Amino acid sequence: MNHSMIRYVLCRLLSVMGYLMVLPLFVALMYREYDSAQDFLMLIAICLIVGYVGSRYKPKNTVIYAKEGFTITAVAWIIMSILGAVPFVLTDAIPNFVDAMFETVSGFTTTGGSILTTVEGMEKSVQFWRTFTHWIGGMGVLVFLIAVVPMADGYSMHLMRAESPGPVVGKIVPKVKDTAKILYLIYCAITVVEIILLKLTGLTLYEAVTLSFSTVGTGGFAVTDSGIGGYSFATQSVITIFMALCGVNFTVYYFLINKKPKEAFAIDEVKYYLGTIVVASLLIGINIFRAGIQDSFGMSLHHALFTVTSIMTTTGFGTLDFDKWPMFSKVSLCVLSLIGACAGSTGGGFKFSRVLIVLRNVRNELNFVVHPKAVKRVFMDGHPVAGTTVKSVSAYLGIYVATLIVSVILVSLDNFDFQTTVTSVIATLNNIGPGLGMVGTTGNYSQFSALSKIVLMFDMLAGRLELLPIFIMLKPRTWRS
Amino acid sequence: MNHSMIRYVLCRLLSVMGYLMVLPLFVALMYREYDSAQDFLMLIAICLIVGYVGSRYKPKNTVIYAKEGFTITAVAWIIMSILGAVPFVLTDAIPNFVDAMFETVSGFTTTGGSILTTVEGMEKSVQFWRTFTHWIGGMGVLVFLIAVVPMADGYSMHLMRAESPGPVVGKIVPKVKDTAKILYLIYCAITVVEIILLKLTGLTLYEAVTLSFSTVGTGGFAVTDSGIGGYSFATQSVITIFMALCGVNFTVYYFLINKKPKEAFAIDEVKYYLGTIVVASLLIGINIFRAGIQDSFGMSLHHALFTVTSIMTTTGFGTLDFDKWPMFSKVSLCVLSLIGACAGSTGGGFKFSRVLIVLRNVRNELNFVVHPKAVKRVFMDGHPVAGTTVKSVSAYLGIYVATLIVSVILVSLDNFDFQTTVTSVIATLNNIGPGLGMVGTTGNYSQFSALSKIVLMFDMLAGRLELLPIFIMLKPRTWRS
Repeated sequence: MNHSMIRYVLCRLLSVMGYLMVLPLFVALMYREYDSAQDFLMLIAICLIVGYVGSRYKPKNTVIYAKEGFTITAVAWIIMSILGAVPFVLTDAIPNFVDAMFETVSGFTTTGGSILTTVEGMEKSVQFWRTFTHWIGGMGVLVFLIAVVPMADGYSMHLMRAESPGPVVGKIVPKVKDTAKILYLIYCAITVVEIILLKLTGLTLYEAVTLSFSTVGTGGFAVTDSGIGGYSFATQSVITIFMALCGVNFTVYYFLINKKPKEAFAIDEVKYYLGTIVVASLLIGINIFRAGIQDSFGMSLHHALFTVTSIMTTTGFGTLDFDKWPMFSKVSLCVLSLIGACAGSTGGGFKFSRVLIVLRNVRNELNFVVHPKAVKRVFMDGHPVAGTTVKSVSAYLGIYVATLIVSVILVSLDNFDFQTTVTSVIATLNNIGPGLGMVGTTGNYSQFSALSKIVLMFDMLAGRLELLPIFIMLKPRTWRS
Repeated sequence: MNHSMIRYVLCRLLSVMGYLMVLPLFVALMYREYDSAQDFLMLIAICLIVGYVGSRYKPKNTVIYAKEGFTITAVAWIIMSILGAVPFVLTDAIPNFVDAMFETVSGFTTTGGSILTTVEGMEKSVQFWRTFTHWIGGMGVLVFLIAVVPMADGYSMHLMRAESPGPVVGKIVPKVKDTAKILYLIYCAITVVEIILLKLTGLTLYEAVTLSFSTVGTGGFAVTDSGIGGYSFATQSVITIFMALCGVNFTVYYFLINKKPKEAFAIDEVKYYLGTIVVASLLIGINIFRAGIQDSFGMSLHHALFTVTSIMTTTGFGTLDFDKWPMFSKVSLCVLSLIGACAGSTGGGFKFSRVLIVLRNVRNELNFVVHPKAVKRVFMDGHPVAGTTVKSVSAYLGIYVATLIVSVILVSLDNFDFQTTVTSVIATLNNIGPGLGMVGTTGNYSQFSALSKIVLMFDMLAGRLELLPIFIMLKPRTWRS
């Protein structure tokens, strides 16, 4: 274990965090929230000083391996969450530290589940910080670090692999640093376009910016208590489109920019992802129309499309209270949230590519029984998938189910109803935000005990980092020199 | 596909079914239920005649492979279920055929979930048949066929493999036929001992026999409406012990009989199985005691032990209505039911050995990231597990989760509450019987629509036969010559 490199990278990360907090500082000054501005300024100073001192001496041995990559990522996210909680506590927006930390973890992991009963009274700069955490966490702070800080490709790859979602890391271009840059450029471009479009639908610039952060990060924090329900049809439609876009594997955009539409549309999971959105929206639209939730079929379809996209991309925005929908719609949304978005997107969940690998592996196993001489290979995007990838996806399913089950048992100690107990874990482990029952669209996570909140925070982090970094960090063996 | 052999084996099975029905015929005569006796007699005649005619000409080519083995098993269980339902319909105990079929599938698959609101008015012979289906299904009718009918080892192995639960089939002795005989002898011995012990606790012979059938088959059909709650402490304790015994891998008993205790206790899953019963009973005992469900800690522990054993072995008997217990107990029972009993036992669920293989594979994957040169082998009972077994267990987890999810979506169309929707599928797919909410200990499955009943029947069969036979039978490709 290269402890010096862990120290070094984490301190560089602190500096980056310091620079990122300049944005909410500006917002505080703009809205004359001078107390908050002071708080942000102090935090920035601490981050920059500690970051500078700690990263002044570059370790002689800069070689790191996968275990360092995973450990750095896990520890980085925990440090970020602690630091990120400080503004909420200092500004008295969320005085309780566990609650503030829950909100921050929910922000960075793009979960969007809140312990707040109201968000409208909050200071503009703190609100801004709250949605900005979604944006930072969506693409990943270490990916940002790789993009902006000079680093050897050899070790940045391990950080990229640990933080990026999906069964295999797609290096878009040969160099990791360039890949990170391209990803962040696409990410920024999408954000800017959404801000402009939302502004055109009549929102204020502040609303357009904060909602765009929440959308492109597939987070789900809103700036009004009514969520997205209070906005116009046009605003809701723009958000639907951008949620859908951000659940797509970002490699697609790179191919499209480089005029390679054939390669872009050869990606299997994107086809299934878009197909599922269409089919599920239709089924749920029909289901809620027949249940009389909406008068017109068109509006039923609009809300179904919004909600399906919101849940599948694990954003968690709501226009209607889907807790009041028929059980078929509720259960279908639950299942969609388990599947989640595409690998290499900002969305969470188990990921479409993993589902495809698992199902194709099952099909192969069934064929193998019938035709023992049949070739047992799993294909994706027209290419055979490496046997080790299939194995690690299978193991991922195991660890995912185990985490889900243990979490549900721990949360059940709070003695809430079955629906709340199960869906609170599903909604955090998959980084969605709202579940059903007490944690439904109109509910929140404030009623849980401290133990449950810690379990759910763990689930959010484990879900965003796709389990391995957190579990590897927790193994005592990892830390041995 | 060797269609002639499928026809031949299925007709031999029909004859066996005919002979097995002689037992309820005797009961009908004993209790002077002459109408029912006539019905059983007619069915026996049909089974024997069709069976005799159909199996008169042995096919020239008796070679069958895995696909024939799986297909025969799946079709056999469907035929058994249809045939087994006839007595319920003819005697007017359950006039509706779908309901009667549900009850029979629930019986043979040792699920024990009922569509009946009362069982006390039923004729003795039909009651007997109802619990006898548990006994037949527990060890398996094809295993019985192998034990009593002359068959070449080469093809009986494929039947055994398809019907016996667990990731690998344990041939106790080199010959499949002898293995089947030994299994049935142990099974009969356990049944007889339980009948004697239950008789000693004060039950009538009829109750002792029927309850023993339900216990050793880990089924769960009771002959009184109050389930096991109305019986004495002694009776409940005897049932607890025999449920626990029948959830153990039967190989253990063979080793014990042959004075090989070392081999018996070297089986990993048995240790974990027994350990889990103890730990879970303690935790749930404390939980229900603190919630004031029982006044004394001793009785809390007694009921916790009974319920944990009942759920883990997927029997489904109840002494108390655990739907009224705190959420921690309910959720823990749900999780225990997912794990289920040992491979090679009469219990259902995912099976302890599979859970161990999945978890050890996960541990290996985590180690692999930290130490890429570490050896990636899964060990069980001190021996390395074949790579193909680990792969097929991983695929099994995939197909299991997929079946669970699709079933929940279909059942949700009935628009019952979340708890009922989810746990009805868990309770049938794992062959437990009772779930929570409307399908809890005091509820039943009568309220479901015909579609849901068919889905749940499918789940019961898929669960008992461990998914593969059913899915292989459903593949059109399987049936090609």
